[in-house]
Amino acid sequence: MKKIITQDLNNAPESKEILETASKTFAGSKKIYLNGSKPEINVPMREILQTDSLTAEGKQKNKPLYVYDTSGPYTDPEVEIDIEFGIPKNRLSWLSKREKNSTQMSLARKGIITEEMEYIAIRENQNLEKNSKLKEGRFHTGENFGANIPEFYTPEFVREEIASGRAVIPANIKHPEIEPMIIGRNFKTKVNANIGNSALSSSIHDEVEKLTWSTRWGADTVMDLSTGKNIHETREWIIRNSPVPIGTVPIYQALEKVDGIAENLSWEVFEETLIEQAEQGVDYFTIHAGVLLRYVPMTAQRVTGIVSRGGSIMAKWCLAHHEENFLYTRFEDICKIMKRYDVTFSLGDGLRPGSVADANDEAQFGELKTLGELTSVAWENDVQTMIEGPGHVPMQLIKENMDKQLEQCAEAPFYTLGPLTTDIAPGYDHITSAIGAAMIGWYGCAMLCYVTPKEHLGLPNKEDVKEGLMAYRIAAHAADLAKGHPSAQIRDNALSQARFEFRWEDQFNLGLDPERAREFHDETLPKDSAKVAHFCSMCGPKFCSMKISQDVRDYAAKQVKEQEVAMKAKAKEFRESGSKIYSKI
Amino acid sequence: MKKIITQDLNNAPESKEILETASKTFAGSKKIYLNGSKPEINVPMREILQTDSLTAEGKQKNKPLYVYDTSGPYTDPEVEIDIEFGIPKNRLSWLSKREKNSTQMSLARKGIITEEMEYIAIRENQNLEKNSKLKEGRFHTGENFGANIPEFYTPEFVREEIASGRAVIPANIKHPEIEPMIIGRNFKTKVNANIGNSALSSSIHDEVEKLTWSTRWGADTVMDLSTGKNIHETREWIIRNSPVPIGTVPIYQALEKVDGIAENLSWEVFEETLIEQAEQGVDYFTIHAGVLLRYVPMTAQRVTGIVSRGGSIMAKWCLAHHEENFLYTRFEDICKIMKRYDVTFSLGDGLRPGSVADANDEAQFGELKTLGELTSVAWENDVQTMIEGPGHVPMQLIKENMDKQLEQCAEAPFYTLGPLTTDIAPGYDHITSAIGAAMIGWYGCAMLCYVTPKEHLGLPNKEDVKEGLMAYRIAAHAADLAKGHPSAQIRDNALSQARFEFRWEDQFNLGLDPERAREFHDETLPKDSAKVAHFCSMCGPKFCSMKISQDVRDYAAKQVKEQEVAMKAKAKEFRESGSKIYSKI
Repeated sequence: MKKIITQDLNNAPESKEILETASKTFAGSKKIYLNGSKPEINVPMREILQTDSLTAEGKQKNKPLYVYDTSGPYTDPEVEIDIEFGIPKNRLSWLSKREKNSTQMSLARKGIITEEMEYIAIRENQNLEKNSKLKEGRFHTGENFGANIPEFYTPEFVREEIASGRAVIPANIKHPEIEPMIIGRNFKTKVNANIGNSALSSSIHDEVEKLTWSTRWGADTVMDLSTGKNIHETREWIIRNSPVPIGTVPIYQALEKVDGIAENLSWEVFEETLIEQAEQGVDYFTIHAGVLLRYVPMTAQRVTGIVSRGGSIMAKWCLAHHEENFLYTRFEDICKIMKRYDVTFSLGDGLRPGSVADANDEAQFGELKTLGELTSVAWENDVQTMIEGPGHVPMQLIKENMDKQLEQCAEAPFYTLGPLTTDIAPGYDHITSAIGAAMIGWYGCAMLCYVTPKEHLGLPNKEDVKEGLMAYRIAAHAADLAKGHPSAQIRDNALSQARFEFRWEDQFNLGLDPERAREFHDETLPKDSAKVAHFCSMCGPKFCSMKISQDVRDYAAKQVKEQEVAMKAKAKEFRESGSKIYSKI
Repeated sequence: MKKIITQDLNNAPESKEILETASKTFAGSKKIYLNGSKPEINVPMREILQTDSLTAEGKQKNKPLYVYDTSGPYTDPEVEIDIEFGIPKNRLSWLSKREKNSTQMSLARKGIITEEMEYIAIRENQNLEKNSKLKEGRFHTGENFGANIPEFYTPEFVREEIASGRAVIPANIKHPEIEPMIIGRNFKTKVNANIGNSALSSSIHDEVEKLTWSTRWGADTVMDLSTGKNIHETREWIIRNSPVPIGTVPIYQALEKVDGIAENLSWEVFEETLIEQAEQGVDYFTIHAGVLLRYVPMTAQRVTGIVSRGGSIMAKWCLAHHEENFLYTRFEDICKIMKRYDVTFSLGDGLRPGSVADANDEAQFGELKTLGELTSVAWENDVQTMIEGPGHVPMQLIKENMDKQLEQCAEAPFYTLGPLTTDIAPGYDHITSAIGAAMIGWYGCAMLCYVTPKEHLGLPNKEDVKEGLMAYRIAAHAADLAKGHPSAQIRDNALSQARFEFRWEDQFNLGLDPERAREFHDETLPKDSAKVAHFCSMCGPKFCSMKISQDVRDYAAKQVKEQEVAMKAKAKEFRESGSKIYSKI
């Protein structure tokens, strides 16, 4: 069924273009929903259909594969969308029944399993059924550094994780459009994409397009880091059209309100901004409450000083006023606002290192300790909390970040930017950081903030956003494999099986980016017939190692059969000779 | 001085084009040579010049940075090159004085320091001087898992590493064109790029262009994996124009000689091929001597069977003949040929896993054990040896590969393909594998074989070769930082310092790919004035965190000064009051 657009988009050509791109279905895939215990719990998945295997015994069916789907209603042909109005508000019926001032954490602590929790349990189980045999055969055990990753997710497990603070469900009660998701190290590793205009460029439509584009390519949450004009309106458009949680850094808008002069910031301006954004439906706030006055001079001898925007704003304020950071002194007040809307804290690492030289220094770890103290204050107020982390960290120092964070923040979810493992590759920082991101994800980091190839150089365009997301989907999946997320390796095995059997179309469709895989294959072997050929362009028809390997397999099977026949003959001979173990010499 | 081309290239426009690309100098850089103890020992470096820092006290000079340079004489404007003839044969004078049948290993064992060893010691020390103070300040200690990485390289250290087998200098006596380099875990992590035509496409000129392009972007060695027509001639062109060691897989050409029918291979055909290629000057041979008959059936139940071309060829031969692999039974004979030319073994991992499911299985580790046994046979014959490794390995299983290899192959250098940490991203396997490559490089892998974005899909073009090399230069450098190569962090710190001071041109030039960094920056802020602006496109002039951070630094310095003044005043007061510690209350 074709998507119906509810209004005449000829008057809004930009919106039409956004919708067309966001709605394009993936080849060989269709959108499905898994049902929960209530009719309103419908968990989206992308079903990837596979062709048959050709075996000596004839064709064999291959099961479809289900993948986690962040693309929202855009890829559902049955849903009507009008970007000027926003996507459907599916959570409204759940929210209408709840008491005021209740957060996922407060409900979990009361033993209540929310609709969001049930939804998430189903969502994290893709391809898994209770007691299924899917994982027999060639599956590896993960190494999870003390995490507690189950073989199968239940709503009760999700509730426990939320109650303990080990996971968060960023879901503002004023953002009914989201499809609930969870951030915690005992779940699938998540990825965040940053978008947002700056004082220098970008339009609202550009940002909405980046939003739908980001979720299409796998962003689990999106941060709107806009700093320029139309900051409120841009955010409104983004939230109303977002199926994923939206995060912001409220101090950016507060600073706009005082004409960019950090010294002029005040609690009043900040409080007003916080409420304004919470009312719009922002799901998590980055708040740099750990940048304490005494930590600021510790950065003076750094190679790259303070590189976090929020961190440097607060540092400047602290120094100008000779006073403690008001985000710290007013933290209880902030908690009260957060609780009212169930906005999740993302406690910002304002003093994160901006170069490998500055990694793991006293300023960074001083702030982390304070974030740990603030976490317990937030939890006393039933406010969900995650902790932001670096930055630039060479490989040998990454684990210390994770270990310290778990210890000092009582296992609150960690959410890191990369980390970048070297400073020497401007233009390729999606790669320098994907290395660190995969590692810290393995060690237990719950969400990875992507880095695009434009990092340090300019604003990412659409293609950069996709490159960044692909690098981070890889990092997150590599982490899931390594830590042992129960469903992770199912996709690798399916793709490798397809590859081995020369099911080219399946190989493309099972991958993270079917379009690029197909395009690359076409460059060398453009003919359609090559898509079913039992060889590939690297070796050509004579040399193909996979083809030879199939011969080896057939041969080995034949050998086993021959041995069995020979053994049976021997056994028969043995029986006929009287079954004596030692025959006469 | 402008490069002089020795013949009229108007008749060879392809050669002219190759030379022009290969000879393009890097912005802000010049080629220099460091001299050794003899006039013929001239070690190339790229000197990157830096602009001045603008400080409160005025302009301050910044030292130039020296980076390891694999681009060969192409980037030296003083050297005449004629691609039809080959690059200068600088090693001829060293080689002419040596006894026959002597390898770097046999000489090292006799206590002889060769010219190559001295050259390498200088080359590995870029930016370091004996007892220099360069590394004071914000430098991290590496974690090296039992490696022995010195603070400064000496020729004697290089000799010891070669004598022990812990490192190799691939340098066929018939390849006098190379600039010597070393592969060993106590040195800079190296990167290999694969080129070569297949039966389906590519010309000789294409391959020579890929060679010069690869070394331009940092390939430390290049493997010519040609399998199609003109295999001998292609290789001749590659070797004569290569400043880096060239590796091959001789069984590919041997198979061509028996019309692609693996069963028809024989020792005689192989021996002839080996000598033919050694005579041409190939520096290292991949030889799949560990694919034993008994290991082959162990692969039958794998998800992706045997994926190494050489491995599957030998497996097929073994099964067809019901005989042990002739590369194994004739290994002593192979050693004798290798020794004559000082060709280095790269013992192939014919049974490496082709999917994460197959990682670390009994077939793979069985073969590794055999490669360890063959290493000691090679060493008895004074033949330098490295060991090839996987492949596809999820993160949690990577270290086991490195640990087992060090143990079973007596610390012979490990040379791995990636490993790819997940199978689900065809089109992005330079990234899936850069993650694994960085990690295994940190753990002690000596050389990383690159993977391009076309892996599994098609033949890499020039752009793919560059993408693959950039990802692998990042992985290798991240590994060098982590394991503590003495000069690694100097480059990161210089770049980060330039970044912090808004020396944009320096930031571009100090990076791995100055062209791309500049191009990305120009996309958002194309004006030349932006290159000296004290802000960047991400935040704009008001918001810049680096600018605020500079203010914080100035402020902190002022504060320190004020404290000093106050302390002095207090001290004066104290002295004037009679220097009593307790004043009357």
